[in-house]
Amino acid sequence: MVKEYLENVRRLVPLVHNITNYVTVNDVANVLLACGGSPIMSDEPEDVEDITSVCGGLNLNIGTLHKSSIEGMLKAGHRANELGHPVLLDPVGAGASALRTNTALRLMRELKLTAVRGNSSEIKTLYLGSGTTKGVDADVADAVTENNLDESIGFVKGFAKETGSVIAVTGAIDLVSDGDRCYVIRNGRPEMGKITGTGCQLSGIMTAYLTANPEHPLEAAAAAVCVMGLAGETAWSRMEKGDGNATYRNRIIDAIYNMTGEDLEKGANYEVR
Amino acid sequence: MVKEYLENVRRLVPLVHNITNYVTVNDVANVLLACGGSPIMSDEPEDVEDITSVCGGLNLNIGTLHKSSIEGMLKAGHRANELGHPVLLDPVGAGASALRTNTALRLMRELKLTAVRGNSSEIKTLYLGSGTTKGVDADVADAVTENNLDESIGFVKGFAKETGSVIAVTGAIDLVSDGDRCYVIRNGRPEMGKITGTGCQLSGIMTAYLTANPEHPLEAAAAAVCVMGLAGETAWSRMEKGDGNATYRNRIIDAIYNMTGEDLEKGANYEVR
Amino acid sequence: MVKEYLENVRRLVPLVHNITNYVTVNDVANVLLACGGSPIMSDEPEDVEDITSVCGGLNLNIGTLHKSSIEGMLKAGHRANELGHPVLLDPVGAGASALRTNTALRLMRELKLTAVRGNSSEIKTLYLGSGTTKGVDADVADAVTENNLDESIGFVKGFAKETGSVIAVTGAIDLVSDGDRCYVIRNGRPEMGKITGTGCQLSGIMTAYLTANPEHPLEAAAAAVCVMGLAGETAWSRMEKGDGNATYRNRIIDAIYNMTGEDLEKGANYEVR
Repeated sequence: MVKEYLENVRRLVPLVHNITNYVTVNDVANVLLACGGSPIMSDEPEDVEDITSVCGGLNLNIGTLHKSSIEGMLKAGHRANELGHPVLLDPVGAGASALRTNTALRLMRELKLTAVRGNSSEIKTLYLGSGTTKGVDADVADAVTENNLDESIGFVKGFAKETGSVIAVTGAIDLVSDGDRCYVIRNGRPEMGKITGTGCQLSGIMTAYLTANPEHPLEAAAAAVCVMGLAGETAWSRMEKGDGNATYRNRIIDAIYNMTGEDLEKGANYEVR
Repeated sequence: MVKEYLENVRRLVPLVHNITNYVTVNDVANVLLACGGSPIMSDEPEDVEDITSVCGGLNLNIGTLHKSSIEGMLKAGHRANELGHPVLLDPVGAGASALRTNTALRLMRELKLTAVRGNSSEIKTLYLGSGTTKGVDADVADAVTENNLDESIGFVKGFAKETGSVIAVTGAIDLVSDGDRCYVIRNGRPEMGKITGTGCQLSGIMTAYLTANPEHPLEAAAAAVCVMGLAGETAWSRMEKGDGNATYRNRIIDAIYNMTGEDLEKGANYEVR
Repeated sequence: MVKEYLENVRRLVPLVHNITNYVTVNDVANVLLACGGSPIMSDEPEDVEDITSVCGGLNLNIGTLHKSSIEGMLKAGHRANELGHPVLLDPVGAGASALRTNTALRLMRELKLTAVRGNSSEIKTLYLGSGTTKGVDADVADAVTENNLDESIGFVKGFAKETGSVIAVTGAIDLVSDGDRCYVIRNGRPEMGKITGTGCQLSGIMTAYLTANPEHPLEAAAAAVCVMGLAGETAWSRMEKGDGNATYRNRIIDAIYNMTGEDLEKGANYEVR
């Protein structure tokens, strides 16, 4: 029954404060509108506390850090924690630089995070405290596969238990756990990796889902992962000869815009372990 | 006779300096090219005076303020005022944070603004000196409707007279006034609200129109509002099954790219009060 | 035989570090993915050395400079030079402001640049040490034409010899030289000038080509110019009634995504002088 999480977003139109990278920020804004939420962006330390106060949730994405935006993330995060708003961390490129790794670890230490969503290399970096992420993509050696599935589920459950956050590791197979249960999700298309920012978009959507479903963070996070993956499948089915990653990007956002609760219920491909 | 304002933009190719937010900046650049202008972006205080000097108009948008970009806006604005260039303010999110409200008020106080364009909540915030804007969207309670139209026209005329700027309040019904007359414009589609940055795009276009039509700021501003709304209608008529807000965004810019003076003359839906 | 340069990019998936403007950064990321590379963006001085170390090439674009990003460009550039990575400079708007001109000249002085790619006004500004660029577009008086072709080739060859960098002047006719030979390329469409950032996109692609073809910088740079121009032609052939510059932008990236070595071999239109 994932459809109620989608329908709550469409009904409640959660306002999401995003401190995110300047590469994919426009897509994050449009996908938040597409899924039924409403986006606002602000990273200036003097502005963020006011902005987060009028919002319902906070999405922190470290894709293009600046010293002042790190300060903005901490200020906004503390204010959101005071207000009881869900806070999500997307540790883009953790493991690829000391600044990214250390900033992600600091945000995990100083803030109460409702959820952390990244690729397998980024999440392993956070678990180990250091890493060797290859840029912004996951290392093949770190990928969740059918062969290492049990072990991967154990890792994600353990890390969720340790941190008290929902942990979402996304890739060919997606794992979302709160420490007790783990959603194993098999929606999506490999071609989504040829679009910049599908992970950032998912983090935006997931924050909207967490905000509109405050009693069910695990299910809301898992539903958001299904939405993004299913949109990738729907969009792919509309691709025509000559279309490439730019058109695919647009069609994915379009698919999210048009997705109903029934579509999600029918298309979501997951098991709970 | 709105078509001459469009044709002047296509003929004169006004170069517009934009200090704008990083969320919608790419769309602002592409829509300026689509309407016949030419965009340049620069917010670094050391760069802005030179850049505004080679341009014809200045578009100030406070969507994602930074301390240094505020300094850049003031420097660029003073230089543009010295040169007699039109300057437009888009007070994105005024009312949602003290920094945004105060920055917008300061820009209004220190600069001579040719036009101010915002939604009804933002403009009311500027009039009252404080506000309760819900993020970057207008509060429903503030909307211009057929029921409060006379009162709304009176408010916009009064604020335009008080400030000496053309005031443009955009929403389901758009009002554009210089204090004496008020254009009431009924172009556009509600679905435009599901795309991030249609307001920012309109502010970019409006600056190009003000720059290419320096003798007629009221008419130029009103024509720009008609262009954006009509493009929203034309684009909507090209939407196909499965299309959503990402495709709609592209089709709106496409519609502006293809719009002729005759199209605008025929499609503009306005009265002057 | 340009196809091998394309195929090397698809085979080696070069990771490119981009310090680029916030206007066109999303298109640069998507076009890098489309051509077979992988993008990462980072401009914070504390982050750039780590990031450039995990990459293969560095793309420096001065389209929206900030004081801190200038520092980031120098730090990243020095590290890339130490590591022997190719470094490209795109001097966006050199000649339009002192900050842009001086920053571009400083980067040329302090760094070993593999290639410099700009429009004719920008490159002339760098040669002369000052200029009168009109915003971010080339001055018509500076354009390379069939009438001044011999003289233009002589200028580009001379500047390449003087600097030790591959110099690429792009416009209606593109010239790419290493000082000895000059590729004269006649791919592309004039309508590409109505899309923001086709130059920035080309610089991203060119950096990927330089990174994947380290023994052949001249040929790699020329192949990248052919790719972009040919994509502009292919994309134009797919345009339908009502399409404009937003759709054209998407179709160009799509065309790069779908381009094979054979397509490039057949469509590249160049001579070597």
